[in-house]
Amino acid sequence: MSNIKDVAKKAGVGIATVSRVLNNSGYVKKETRERIERVIYEIGYVPNEIARSMTKQKTRIIAFIVPHSNHIFFSQLIYFVEKALYEFGHKLMVCNSGSNREKELDLINMLKNNRVDGLILLTSNDIENYIKPHLPIVSFDRRFKGIPFVASDNYEGGRLAAKKLLSYNPKKLLFIGDDAQGELSDIKTEVTKRRLGFVDYLKTQNFSNYSVIEYPLGDLFVPKNFLEMMIREHADVDGIFTISDMVAEVIINELKRLGKRIPEDIKVVGYDGVKGYLNLGLTISSIAQPTEELAKHLVEVLLQKIHGLEAHDIILPVSYVDGDTT
Amino acid sequence: MSNIKDVAKKAGVGIATVSRVLNNSGYVKKETRERIERVIYEIGYVPNEIARSMTKQKTRIIAFIVPHSNHIFFSQLIYFVEKALYEFGHKLMVCNSGSNREKELDLINMLKNNRVDGLILLTSNDIENYIKPHLPIVSFDRRFKGIPFVASDNYEGGRLAAKKLLSYNPKKLLFIGDDAQGELSDIKTEVTKRRLGFVDYLKTQNFSNYSVIEYPLGDLFVPKNFLEMMIREHADVDGIFTISDMVAEVIINELKRLGKRIPEDIKVVGYDGVKGYLNLGLTISSIAQPTEELAKHLVEVLLQKIHGLEAHDIILPVSYVDGDTT
Repeated sequence: MSNIKDVAKKAGVGIATVSRVLNNSGYVKKETRERIERVIYEIGYVPNEIARSMTKQKTRIIAFIVPHSNHIFFSQLIYFVEKALYEFGHKLMVCNSGSNREKELDLINMLKNNRVDGLILLTSNDIENYIKPHLPIVSFDRRFKGIPFVASDNYEGGRLAAKKLLSYNPKKLLFIGDDAQGELSDIKTEVTKRRLGFVDYLKTQNFSNYSVIEYPLGDLFVPKNFLEMMIREHADVDGIFTISDMVAEVIINELKRLGKRIPEDIKVVGYDGVKGYLNLGLTISSIAQPTEELAKHLVEVLLQKIHGLEAHDIILPVSYVDGDTT
Repeated sequence: MSNIKDVAKKAGVGIATVSRVLNNSGYVKKETRERIERVIYEIGYVPNEIARSMTKQKTRIIAFIVPHSNHIFFSQLIYFVEKALYEFGHKLMVCNSGSNREKELDLINMLKNNRVDGLILLTSNDIENYIKPHLPIVSFDRRFKGIPFVASDNYEGGRLAAKKLLSYNPKKLLFIGDDAQGELSDIKTEVTKRRLGFVDYLKTQNFSNYSVIEYPLGDLFVPKNFLEMMIREHADVDGIFTISDMVAEVIINELKRLGKRIPEDIKVVGYDGVKGYLNLGLTISSIAQPTEELAKHLVEVLLQKIHGLEAHDIILPVSYVDGDTT
């Protein structure tokens, strides 16, 4: 049986365009629309799933659960997700879960009650039991059984950071993370692979003078006292890889306050690589995630899942971007 | 006839709490709930508007139209709006209009078709004719006839910036704005008052050596060539007030590239006062908007409008916050 991909391929357009024609939403050029309709007729494509889903009351609303929508990386991801959804005639609902598991379950209930059509999920809470494979969900940065997921290559990102810092012949390296659940429970998000990639690469290079520091809070809440103690304890450190650029920012400002020069005394590499705001010309060296591409894939994979099509996991490559902290 | 405010006052709680009890949404302590229910009974309050609105199919979704949700000030405003809405049992839909007027009209149609319950509108497009007083809309930073609006005190913000810059005994001052429509059409948002307050204050102090520069783009798109020309033309400038912190950031980096020292050669004051991300310790001196308060008032005023209550315009005070650029 032919599917929407066959139609798109034969018509020489993207799935998005076919979807727009099928749903009669968004702009499609007259010639393109007619070509797609001809292909649909020729190959006898019956948009079963779509036909079925259109008999149900659809909201055309997708909910996106994030811990904090004002986190710089998430705010960029939300921006691009909204743009991508709009291309498909869908609207975006944004929900800040904070560390509030109940709020996440509330949203999952909205999904079950058909008050939204699908869910983009970014969570590190213990909600495994509520995520059923039949639900139209795509997960970011975390694997749930039967649910497609999208992430950047966190493991390779950790390796790249290690490689970069080793290139300066350091005396001692630190990894600083906010692995809220990683050490304390069974919940492992893909983000923990930043540390694994980092440590594994150091091991392959026989570099053993490193420490791993994890504090049990998200990266918007770096505990300052803890940082100061940590920096004093590891006074010989000359290279640091942090779990995110926002943690890097806090660390760098704390190091400066303690009289360290960046990058002369200590080099710092972050993760995310989103252009900072109001940074007055100084940028953090970072492992950059392809934010807009991640957003597009989150939307595409979710719509595949909603339409009953096969949805594959997506892992996108990252790259090292030079800034002023190395 | 008594209204929800009377109930709140008599029960010694906020309108939000009464609303939660009436709508049976969100958490209210058992004692509080019972007290409110008693007051409702005692004063014979009939939640007419709410009863009426609850017979209609309600979505409990509020849409927020912003030009760019990843703009640092808007992303903070969105974050706090979502939190405030959740307190009232409502969800937030976020829409980036960009400069896309059709997308805004699309959302207004959703509102007219009851696919969302209300709209928070932040726009500088020509959509005056579509905004009817009966619609459940609250406007941010712009006045529409019959629609309540919320803003910070933009005029006073401009005055504060002028006062601060004059305190350095400058030779020449500049205002740099992105007044996209201000000079070219009849559309005036409250944001233009930043310039008016600035210029008026300079006049009252008999300071006449200033120029006003406006470029016809939003503050995410500061044209670099234009900036360089402008800076060369006004080589004697030693103080600048910009329409936003994001414009200030671009100006400062461009000035640095041209060999100027900030603040030694030129002092810069921005507007918004949102904590920058990834700023590596350097912050922009700014007129700070009370972001969380603005968000709370946007939500409160909109819910008043939705419930058929009297909704007043709100203008909140701003303050000067010292940074590293003055």
